[in-house]
Amino acid sequence: MIFYYAPQTVSVASHITLNEVGADYELRKLDFKVTEQQSPDYLKVNPKGRVPALATDQGIITETPAILFYLAQSFPKAKMAPLEDAFQLAKLQEFNAYLCATVHVAHAHRMRGSRWVDDEAAIKAMQAKVPETMHACFQLIENEMFKGPWVLGENYSVCDPYLFTISNWLEGDSVDLNDFPQIAEHHWRMRERDAVKPVLELHGL
Amino acid sequence: MIFYYAPQTVSVASHITLNEVGADYELRKLDFKVTEQQSPDYLKVNPKGRVPALATDQGIITETPAILFYLAQSFPKAKMAPLEDAFQLAKLQEFNAYLCATVHVAHAHRMRGSRWVDDEAAIKAMQAKVPETMHACFQLIENEMFKGPWVLGENYSVCDPYLFTISNWLEGDSVDLNDFPQIAEHHWRMRERDAVKPVLELHGL
Repeated sequence: MIFYYAPQTVSVASHITLNEVGADYELRKLDFKVTEQQSPDYLKVNPKGRVPALATDQGIITETPAILFYLAQSFPKAKMAPLEDAFQLAKLQEFNAYLCATVHVAHAHRMRGSRWVDDEAAIKAMQAKVPETMHACFQLIENEMFKGPWVLGENYSVCDPYLFTISNWLEGDSVDLNDFPQIAEHHWRMRERDAVKPVLELHGL
Repeated sequence: MIFYYAPQTVSVASHITLNEVGADYELRKLDFKVTEQQSPDYLKVNPKGRVPALATDQGIITETPAILFYLAQSFPKAKMAPLEDAFQLAKLQEFNAYLCATVHVAHAHRMRGSRWVDDEAAIKAMQAKVPETMHACFQLIENEMFKGPWVLGENYSVCDPYLFTISNWLEGDSVDLNDFPQIAEHHWRMRERDAVKPVLELHGL
């Protein structure tokens, strides 16, 4: 498999999961400084011009929740998802959908405001609210979603690298990770995992 | 099961899927005009204060991609997802993640701008760009994602009610459905399905 990524982006979640399941993969780094994710060559890989993308023998997969689920299903021995328990699997998907569509989106209003407005003052207004929206998202995760010791409870799953990835963005979003004791403890525990350490080094995290 | 919904919202996708799989369910309608989705009683069901939510014997599931997947997995005879084919299932998840995190979010900047800014002028700036962003999303679906005759190709899946649901929002977003011939044809074909007709009537669509 070939894994297309950019440092410190949401691709960190899939990158960790590739290591967790013991996948054999090559890395292709995209340089956001020269907008390589919008280059003609990369648009052939992912017409959305985003990372991550995972090239498999059967074709390309994009979108973090899809890549995470694919890896969990393709490497069942790694037990990264409760594949046979429809309800628990739904809770996994629910958590990942919340990260993808609400939390990541809230964060994106700081650096990617031009996706949704053209006006410079409006982009600044968006940026101003990011600390509040990200704090509210993490408070909800801390109070209502996080079971402990892992996101879904006793069993580690693909939700854990995904939450960890986004928790790395809090400082840049002017939110204090320590406001969320369970998530903070999870964050530091994640950093010690064998599958995580080389990813942190490569991404400069 | 109890299905919590509000008319014309994204809950239409799960509502259609409940019918497609032949589930036995009760309806609970939430009145957005009095912000019932933020009422103390409903926040016990879904602390996020959003619809849809599906109460099952084992607990509550929220987030459209999670509900759709849960229904597909729980009612395998309905064949609403390629459950055993990891790659095709990843393509299903990829499509639903795009609808959830990019297309629905683009649309939400018209009616729910206060999620991301406090400033009235910025909310107007967001609204002004919605026709452009929604058009770009649907152009990408038409050109790059939609296989035909159904979203994933020969087999109907949970992607189809989800795409159909959002295609109903285009007119309000000042985007012409007819700019996307495959999606337009899909839209009108969806309206004729037995599982869809009663939903359209109930939601006033």
